[in-house]
Amino acid sequence: MAKRTEPIKSNASDDTVDKLEGLGKTLLTEIEKEQSPSFEAPLRGRSNVLHNEKTGFLYLGDKKEKRFFLNVAQAKKFMQTVAVAAKCKKFKDENLHTSIRGLFYQLKFTLGEDIDEELFEEQTESNDLVEDLEVSLAVKREDLNLSTDRKGVVAGNMKIKDKFGGSETTIDCSKQGRSGWMIPSDVDNGMEILDVDADYVLVIEKDAMWQRLNEDQFWRKERCILITPKGQASRGCRRLIRKLADRKLPIYCFMDSDAWGWYIYWTIKTGSMNLAYLGGNIATPEAKFIGVSMSDLDTYEFLKKLTIRAKDVDIKRAEEMLTYPWIAKHPEWVKELKTVLEIKKKLEQDALQGPRLTFVGDYVREKISKKLFLP
Amino acid sequence: MAKRTEPIKSNASDDTVDKLEGLGKTLLTEIEKEQSPSFEAPLRGRSNVLHNEKTGFLYLGDKKEKRFFLNVAQAKKFMQTVAVAAKCKKFKDENLHTSIRGLFYQLKFTLGEDIDEELFEEQTESNDLVEDLEVSLAVKREDLNLSTDRKGVVAGNMKIKDKFGGSETTIDCSKQGRSGWMIPSDVDNGMEILDVDADYVLVIEKDAMWQRLNEDQFWRKERCILITPKGQASRGCRRLIRKLADRKLPIYCFMDSDAWGWYIYWTIKTGSMNLAYLGGNIATPEAKFIGVSMSDLDTYEFLKKLTIRAKDVDIKRAEEMLTYPWIAKHPEWVKELKTVLEIKKKLEQDALQGPRLTFVGDYVREKISKKLFLP
Repeated sequence: MAKRTEPIKSNASDDTVDKLEGLGKTLLTEIEKEQSPSFEAPLRGRSNVLHNEKTGFLYLGDKKEKRFFLNVAQAKKFMQTVAVAAKCKKFKDENLHTSIRGLFYQLKFTLGEDIDEELFEEQTESNDLVEDLEVSLAVKREDLNLSTDRKGVVAGNMKIKDKFGGSETTIDCSKQGRSGWMIPSDVDNGMEILDVDADYVLVIEKDAMWQRLNEDQFWRKERCILITPKGQASRGCRRLIRKLADRKLPIYCFMDSDAWGWYIYWTIKTGSMNLAYLGGNIATPEAKFIGVSMSDLDTYEFLKKLTIRAKDVDIKRAEEMLTYPWIAKHPEWVKELKTVLEIKKKLEQDALQGPRLTFVGDYVREKISKKLFLP
Repeated sequence: MAKRTEPIKSNASDDTVDKLEGLGKTLLTEIEKEQSPSFEAPLRGRSNVLHNEKTGFLYLGDKKEKRFFLNVAQAKKFMQTVAVAAKCKKFKDENLHTSIRGLFYQLKFTLGEDIDEELFEEQTESNDLVEDLEVSLAVKREDLNLSTDRKGVVAGNMKIKDKFGGSETTIDCSKQGRSGWMIPSDVDNGMEILDVDADYVLVIEKDAMWQRLNEDQFWRKERCILITPKGQASRGCRRLIRKLADRKLPIYCFMDSDAWGWYIYWTIKTGSMNLAYLGGNIATPEAKFIGVSMSDLDTYEFLKKLTIRAKDVDIKRAEEMLTYPWIAKHPEWVKELKTVLEIKKKLEQDALQGPRLTFVGDYVREKISKKLFLP
């Protein structure tokens, strides 16, 4: 059984089939030795999520759970996991992709013939099993030919080679007009960033603001890669940001100053609790927060009348963030969050359009040139 | 004041500025004549939403409401509407776009200086005013330089000329790789379909299924335009489908057989209650429903074990749909919905992947070649 004590670092999927076969062989060996087949995976609960002070991202600790085929309570889940692994192996062999929902129906179709029990009635169950497999084999589900929800758009001087479905295309992200190129589910397998001619990456929370800057040709004038995750960043979007950071491009995040904006930022930066098992593979600790921030209220007088009332969720989130050691260690963030708790106001990035629509670009330019960002 | 008894048909926005100026001039004339300035708009409530039996789409009836500046109860809303119109005129003059949220902050910024009252505290209020303006001037908000939520992806042999933000690009939708081109908010102003080399348009409810068929290069092999609205279709997506139908391409919709799938289909076909004021501009009555449908259970034996339990929302929706005269007049739909109510099962398009991932394409091919669709 593959073991994993380090966060997943590699993006190579070439060995995914080997790992799947390895799992099968290990089980067979155990059976031949008349041992109960077993399956080990790191525990994914919050109690096993740790923050790596040095690297700056969340990862899974050493706690593990082992499942045995001959344990009555675990037999069903054990069998399901093996069935999922077998299907993924088949998808790899066929060189075809599907969603978790597609996997669910394949399992329902296959197992329904042999056994009476409807094992995979609920999708959440198969989703859970896929996570088990990702964790124990140390591969991403994208490497298992499972596509995930995609969201987010990119534009800028970047060319991408895309081999998919038996054809090859070069995507020019500077020629995508008003819309930009949609960030795919899998930005690794068969996809390669050919060249990037940019000084930095700007990640903008809201699509509407992305469209605003795209209209101003901001990415062309400022030589940047313009990304919007369209709210919370998808796995593919987070992974793309990581890959751009690997090319030594600074990553600047431009979000609302509220619960949701902070959450999106910190998820990009440290990774999320749920996906801690992917560790440094989709986290970008180098990311900086350029705003909007409460300190903007001192710099830009007009913003004072454009704040809006903080909701309960914003207050709760600010309190919660102050308890995370990786946030509380930054005095800038402590000050920011305490201001929100004190004045009970929030600030949206859209407010920068108050005086004139093109002010947004001026704001971003000033923040970046003066290096005014939160860590 | 511009009047509108017919649903908006034109997609020309050249006269939007004229219309905005016309509104201002009418108000001025009324003031000069010492009349109370007034503003008339069709009533947008459900009581004024009608289905045009002949053309097949929802539209607003003749009921109107008139607002007067000197009426105490209406003065505030009247002034707000004029402020929105003035801002949109400014955006048109500047040739810049923003979202409703951006408009909200511009109004908050401007009015906040002159008046004490925070008129636009809530965005829902400015949203409502934009609808008033759309309806009374018979223009779309996209024509007022307001961008809307965008969603949906397209691929296929189609070239698009895109003039936006001072640059011009040609988008080749056959060279978008694994991702496809994101459907923009505004598919009219500055955007032109140059040529389409396809036999039909396939609209697929779910992005995951779109990705499946995109991987199979379905659009290339079958000479079709592959669109996913990614769930409910955005305004831009619905308008793009309308424009493709105007080019005499058959529109085939491939949805789940459940509340949500039916709703998405009928919204594309007849338009929606909320946007009835856009009438034929974003409705595509020519659209056909190719499945998945309850009648598939007879044709494809394996699907019987891949149905899932219908939820309350599915049952309620089926009952509701049977009360709409434009649905109830089709015996095929009545049969379909009654089957759902009887067996209390639903069927997802993803289930077609049960036997093998590539079966989805075979299903679509068979449906289209044998003309097996619901009206």
